Amino acid sequence: MYKVDMNSDLGESFGTYKLGMDAEILEFVSSANVACGFHAGDPLVMEDTVRLAKAAGVAVGAHPGYPDLMGFGRRNMVCTPKEAKAYVKYQLGALTAYTAAQGLKLQHCKPHGALYNMAAKDMALAAAIAEAIAEVDKDIILLGLANSLMIKAGQEAGLRVASEVFADRAYQADGTLVPRKLPGAVIHDTELAIARTVRMVKEGCVTAITGEEVPLSADSICVHGDNPSALEFVKNIRARLEAEGVTIVPISEIV
Amino acid sequence: MYKVDMNSDLGESFGTYKLGMDAEILEFVSSANVACGFHAGDPLVMEDTVRLAKAAGVAVGAHPGYPDLMGFGRRNMVCTPKEAKAYVKYQLGALTAYTAAQGLKLQHCKPHGALYNMAAKDMALAAAIAEAIAEVDKDIILLGLANSLMIKAGQEAGLRVASEVFADRAYQADGTLVPRKLPGAVIHDTELAIARTVRMVKEGCVTAITGEEVPLSADSICVHGDNPSALEFVKNIRARLEAEGVTIVPISEIV
Amino acid sequence: MYKVDMNSDLGESFGTYKLGMDAEILEFVSSANVACGFHAGDPLVMEDTVRLAKAAGVAVGAHPGYPDLMGFGRRNMVCTPKEAKAYVKYQLGALTAYTAAQGLKLQHCKPHGALYNMAAKDMALAAAIAEAIAEVDKDIILLGLANSLMIKAGQEAGLRVASEVFADRAYQADGTLVPRKLPGAVIHDTELAIARTVRMVKEGCVTAITGEEVPLSADSICVHGDNPSALEFVKNIRARLEAEGVTIVPISEIV
Amino acid sequence: MYKVDMNSDLGESFGTYKLGMDAEILEFVSSANVACGFHAGDPLVMEDTVRLAKAAGVAVGAHPGYPDLMGFGRRNMVCTPKEAKAYVKYQLGALTAYTAAQGLKLQHCKPHGALYNMAAKDMALAAAIAEAIAEVDKDIILLGLANSLMIKAGQEAGLRVASEVFADRAYQADGTLVPRKLPGAVIHDTELAIARTVRMVKEGCVTAITGEEVPLSADSICVHGDNPSALEFVKNIRARLEAEGVTIVPISEIV
Repeated sequence: MYKVDMNSDLGESFGTYKLGMDAEILEFVSSANVACGFHAGDPLVMEDTVRLAKAAGVAVGAHPGYPDLMGFGRRNMVCTPKEAKAYVKYQLGALTAYTAAQGLKLQHCKPHGALYNMAAKDMALAAAIAEAIAEVDKDIILLGLANSLMIKAGQEAGLRVASEVFADRAYQADGTLVPRKLPGAVIHDTELAIARTVRMVKEGCVTAITGEEVPLSADSICVHGDNPSALEFVKNIRARLEAEGVTIVPISEIV
Repeated sequence: MYKVDMNSDLGESFGTYKLGMDAEILEFVSSANVACGFHAGDPLVMEDTVRLAKAAGVAVGAHPGYPDLMGFGRRNMVCTPKEAKAYVKYQLGALTAYTAAQGLKLQHCKPHGALYNMAAKDMALAAAIAEAIAEVDKDIILLGLANSLMIKAGQEAGLRVASEVFADRAYQADGTLVPRKLPGAVIHDTELAIARTVRMVKEGCVTAITGEEVPLSADSICVHGDNPSALEFVKNIRARLEAEGVTIVPISEIV
Repeated sequence: MYKVDMNSDLGESFGTYKLGMDAEILEFVSSANVACGFHAGDPLVMEDTVRLAKAAGVAVGAHPGYPDLMGFGRRNMVCTPKEAKAYVKYQLGALTAYTAAQGLKLQHCKPHGALYNMAAKDMALAAAIAEAIAEVDKDIILLGLANSLMIKAGQEAGLRVASEVFADRAYQADGTLVPRKLPGAVIHDTELAIARTVRMVKEGCVTAITGEEVPLSADSICVHGDNPSALEFVKNIRARLEAEGVTIVPISEIV
Repeated sequence: MYKVDMNSDLGESFGTYKLGMDAEILEFVSSANVACGFHAGDPLVMEDTVRLAKAAGVAVGAHPGYPDLMGFGRRNMVCTPKEAKAYVKYQLGALTAYTAAQGLKLQHCKPHGALYNMAAKDMALAAAIAEAIAEVDKDIILLGLANSLMIKAGQEAGLRVASEVFADRAYQADGTLVPRKLPGAVIHDTELAIARTVRMVKEGCVTAITGEEVPLSADSICVHGDNPSALEFVKNIRARLEAEGVTIVPISEIV
């Protein structure tokens, strides 16, 4: 039997600023990555998001980012591993207050934006993140880019790790993503994106932009709920996965 | 046998900015109130402070404040109880990441500055703080101003509460502090301050500025390590308390 | 000939967070209050907003607020007059960089949210704001609540002042607004709101909630562009004012 | 007749946090780089610093940095040139409010920390900074690292530029600084540092770490007032320069 997790970034509103269609996307995903106040989210938003996720039966994870609200955590910042580690712990801890209050355990931790991208290629940073998680709670799963250093760092830190794949992104022969600035990086053909995703889940394989067949673990699929058409795509991909015999379950039931 | 806790605010540095003589004051106190990043402190500072406190055998508590780094949390802000509750939970959680990593339990929570002062007189705010603590962890002790609404709110929320007294402050007949702007609010005579403190601890009583004898619980004495003379005072008061047969122990051994 | 200014708060987006229908509302107003980064707005947003306003022929003013992005500057903060003065200067200066780059002069300054409301009733705070403006540039007009201490403070500081009125708010017999929490504070009948506004502009008079006729200066009408229906209201009120022979001009052509 | 400017970073305190010996260093320098609230400094500190500098007869310039208070602006951040430009304008404008209030003109702008270092080697970033200055006020002098792209960008933007040299740093054959992580990067021999500085000022030349004679403009010498020994060094270097016939004057009298 095939199974896969579908995860989405949630709780990205801040104060009076609303972002995302959290209530709607929660109907389709199995894991929620909740922003923790550094690049997005605030205490009230975090509390509400945890409550919403619990009500929807969606597992809750932390989505820590760089301390850069103005840049939404998408700008590379050169922090020391020690700084990054302390930042991840802070955010994990902060979110834990809300999950504990709701009787939930934090299921996973997925770094956000620039922290995610940098850690995928920087072993010292990836190790700092993995150690932060391990020190806070060894049971938290590290969700990172498939075939990246984040997965390796998580394993070395003794954590359970989950590999994330992207439905609409092209892959390189080494199993990493084609950088967004290169042509062909994003797959705009919805049908193709869905078919590739089904194959990643069922066969553990994807065709690279240069034609090679690349093996990759597809424990969790990253989806977005920013707008109605993104939501429609999520609905479609879920329906298709289920039609193909794939069950959507939280990461904790996979790794 | 008499016993009392001595608590001090710690971890108030931020980034490149250093504040307080944390290593020195830790030799004399039994409980540390650690700033959590809203009015002071940052992730690296919090991590270091928890480590220092553990090494000194001092119990660790959270010192949550208003989100006002520029005003050091000393400026009254009109937040809703819901906001205040979410802010306290966030800060408690954040600090817990570092205590958990060190194998420590959070002993207590003492609101900082304006949050402390406002909550002492505002039952809705005090209740919000007490509920925040109770929802995060029922075992955390609420440390608040003796005879204030914070103590009452903590009791109503089912928390263990500890009453804080001030060695160098005058009290009113109703057991509350004489506001700082009034004459005689601060007791500058060190000997008198120490004698009053000993009496508060041993007799549970203080002489009000208007002459009445006022009963009050003295579970914990607030002391400061901002400068060498403050530190000297702490050393003296501790020595005198011990000479009077009072043992200095963390709050958890008192309430 | 009658004339009045119509002002609206603009540039309230922040980073990835979008707020308001700035491009649309600019077609109907004569003065823009641009957020300056403390309660809303960021450098890129400020730059864009000034550019948009200039292109629309709308006069630009500053909209300084408390340093409280999480609360959108709507929460009362107890700052000293010295602090408030320094904060207003900072924000005025910051915005001036973008107006100067566009060859524009800053027309006015209207405090935002809690700063506006508190200054309307607190002479020391109002004076601090007025002095901040006067020290930065004596030609900047202070836009404040009609009949409030802000107007008085502006006059005492030697500034040109403009009185702001609200189409959809009830007034008390002393010329101040009925607080929002009281019944009848907001006028939901659009026709009534428009008729009252026309009368304020043409007759300098409004009927208080208790029946008295209250004189007030109506130099500028506050309007909002948060959503399509708010925008529709602005379009209607402008059309009606013009039909009644009132010309819509920037504040600088009125006071 | 020889002349040179001596500049120092000032106004780096924030809220309750004090940093630097501003009053003391002002006795020895001719230009002050005032932090503008992004990486250090706050509105009250800026106001006080401008007042202090004016009283000491020291010219005032802006010291804009990345929005990273926690990292003191010392961490590389990957902003777009458009973002960097908007940030520099914001900070220049903010400081101008205080100089205008004191009847002063902003003399110069020297980027801080990571912004300074990145712009020295990145033409797009350097150009963004130069254009920001030019758009705010063409009379503001750009103070940047001698022989760096910042100087080139300033010239291309039509600004007056001033080249900064470091007394205690070793230079490479191409006129750039030896990176701090390399051996020999910092010159600890005070006498040697002073002699090199005198030569840079009088001969426009410095001996590279690899032995070559490197021409460089020495319009301004960067000095620090962080601690008593730094201050002592500043006093010495100034005395020696004057003994060698070099007059210390603000940048505006040099370029």
